[in-house]
Amino acid sequence: MSRQKLLFTPGPLTTSETVKQAMLRDMGSRDAEFLSVISHIRHRLLELGHVANGSYQAVLMQGTGTFAVESVLSSAIPSSGKLLVAINGAYGHRMAKISTVLGILCQTIVFEEDRPVLVERVRRVLAEDPSITHVGVVHCETSSGMLNPVVELGATVRELGRIFIVDAMSSFGGIPLDISEAKVDFLVSSANKCLQGVPGFAFVLARRDLLEATEGNARSVSLDLLAQWRELERSGQFRFTAPTHALLALRQALEELKEEGGVAARAARYSANRVALVEGMTELGFDTYLRPEHQSHFITSFRIPADRRFEFPTFYTRLSELGFVIYPGKVSNAECFRIGTIGHIFPRDIRALVEAIRQVLEQMQVDSGESALESGGRTTTRSEP
Amino acid sequence: MSRQKLLFTPGPLTTSETVKQAMLRDMGSRDAEFLSVISHIRHRLLELGHVANGSYQAVLMQGTGTFAVESVLSSAIPSSGKLLVAINGAYGHRMAKISTVLGILCQTIVFEEDRPVLVERVRRVLAEDPSITHVGVVHCETSSGMLNPVVELGATVRELGRIFIVDAMSSFGGIPLDISEAKVDFLVSSANKCLQGVPGFAFVLARRDLLEATEGNARSVSLDLLAQWRELERSGQFRFTAPTHALLALRQALEELKEEGGVAARAARYSANRVALVEGMTELGFDTYLRPEHQSHFITSFRIPADRRFEFPTFYTRLSELGFVIYPGKVSNAECFRIGTIGHIFPRDIRALVEAIRQVLEQMQVDSGESALESGGRTTTRSEP
Repeated sequence: MSRQKLLFTPGPLTTSETVKQAMLRDMGSRDAEFLSVISHIRHRLLELGHVANGSYQAVLMQGTGTFAVESVLSSAIPSSGKLLVAINGAYGHRMAKISTVLGILCQTIVFEEDRPVLVERVRRVLAEDPSITHVGVVHCETSSGMLNPVVELGATVRELGRIFIVDAMSSFGGIPLDISEAKVDFLVSSANKCLQGVPGFAFVLARRDLLEATEGNARSVSLDLLAQWRELERSGQFRFTAPTHALLALRQALEELKEEGGVAARAARYSANRVALVEGMTELGFDTYLRPEHQSHFITSFRIPADRRFEFPTFYTRLSELGFVIYPGKVSNAECFRIGTIGHIFPRDIRALVEAIRQVLEQMQVDSGESALESGGRTTTRSEP
Repeated sequence: MSRQKLLFTPGPLTTSETVKQAMLRDMGSRDAEFLSVISHIRHRLLELGHVANGSYQAVLMQGTGTFAVESVLSSAIPSSGKLLVAINGAYGHRMAKISTVLGILCQTIVFEEDRPVLVERVRRVLAEDPSITHVGVVHCETSSGMLNPVVELGATVRELGRIFIVDAMSSFGGIPLDISEAKVDFLVSSANKCLQGVPGFAFVLARRDLLEATEGNARSVSLDLLAQWRELERSGQFRFTAPTHALLALRQALEELKEEGGVAARAARYSANRVALVEGMTELGFDTYLRPEHQSHFITSFRIPADRRFEFPTFYTRLSELGFVIYPGKVSNAECFRIGTIGHIFPRDIRALVEAIRQVLEQMQVDSGESALESGGRTTTRSEP
């Protein structure tokens, strides 16, 4: 086996050895011990969202986070419903695309990718269009690293009597959030992000009364959220093959989250990772894509240097050869790459990464990470429609 | 960690230690080494189906086998299409249910669960109804253990100009099958059955021309088979988070399949497992649900003993405590339980299981496994509609 690389990616990410070792076991998907694993995980997820009092329910869903987002949209929104998506990145656009493919009426408000969703704009659209029944937003836009104001949005959406759906894929478990207080009705996240498990399933934390009211909406058998929940409640089992190994990994990962001191402690570590990253990268001349006040501590977009000797594929490959895996950019209006600061990584790993970046730049004869960005200005090529 | 139990289940099943150890590694989902894992797996799957000449394509799909079945039905069948499902068990019914939920016109022919699908019945329905465009069938009905005549069905479906979709979940890799020769157009199977990987994804082996012709059909973003294939071809990546650990496990499992001597050798081992099982269980008085000539070597249904002291939950739990996990029944017209003979298990394990069953029967004071079935007769409570 080749040496383990460290992943500075938004997931799959670096997990602890003990999380991976938890997978060294085959469990019967209907065996009592395994059912207790499922039950424990469902309860812990609700606890992490501060909603373990029965008013919310945890539904595990096989597949990726996108599968779970689709399961919510296709199950929660009736054929007479209409979704409003507040978008400032690729994952917001994906929500809208899913709705469109599912034949759900969908309206979008598209913001600049380097600006947070504006609550007042959402309020205005909701006030003007009473046919909108649901509002969707991405908590942390993994495409840029932007953190959107879900608490303020939730208050507005609830005040105006709509149902609030939050894609918290790369944020849940990595930043304190009281789901009920934030007025989130359906929250979607994944096992392999801030919870530091492995890929294989995602989950939905849903208000129980609203979940029960989705009867008859599902547009899919596999992604039927209500049927999945009912089977988990009835028999404690998944309807279809459970990702047994990934569940064992998450159980261990949730123990390690507790040992670390919970979500606040994990958020502090991620934040320290990000501080170390931005300090180091700034020293090398790199510019961040987002203003610091909009930046989450999950993933950071850096602008591609102006120096023509910098080529991202070479940069990526050489870093990977040194044992550091980063991520390409995903914003549409600027050339960027991304570095994740989540997973089983620590400030010392970040410093080692920055040192490797320094070496690779030197090898590439790139003098500075400085981008073409004018001081104080921002390159934006698309405007809000 | 408690002692590892042996799983006599249709998957998740017992995998080798080395398959599980392959998961002790986090890989970047866009890293070159990982992309070569995906590419290698896709190629090997086509080789196992004897269709690695380019005319068929392998599409990996996150989630369970049912997710992949739904991805085929929702992607392959246009809105003007009509599916005929030949059913003799729960998985055939599931295909029909998926079609119905997706709004796809669907006709069914329902056979007794202890009888194979009759090719002549399918031929007659196809001849009578020219609006049928696709035919679906389950190769091995995991619900009973029944092996359906896919080669004969394929010849008929092709002759009558329809598209043939086969759910080969619990059979692919465990019985020789030349997909092209069998005239299968879309075959669906999973990583965690006869290939002896872990759960996390399934796959579709599809005729390339027919796959390309599915443009515009998809009724889902997550389960869009064509989009998934195109991204795998374009970038070598999954569209959404790849189940990296499960893929590493399958790569190792495919190596071990080769080392075992390929599909024929594996089929011989499974067959030896089944012979050992039926011999041992017959000695204990148990009756099989299916006639031997319809029985696959993947999973066998046994009738619940007539002795009233036999209670399945107790039987199951005591066997599990002894380290042997079996499976409840899933046929609708008889009380049964099931024992799988696939996975990293060998005739010696089967003999140990039978010995454990003998012990448990003794503890339960059950004199014999004999069912209420009259000698030579068959209890059938539902007839073909």
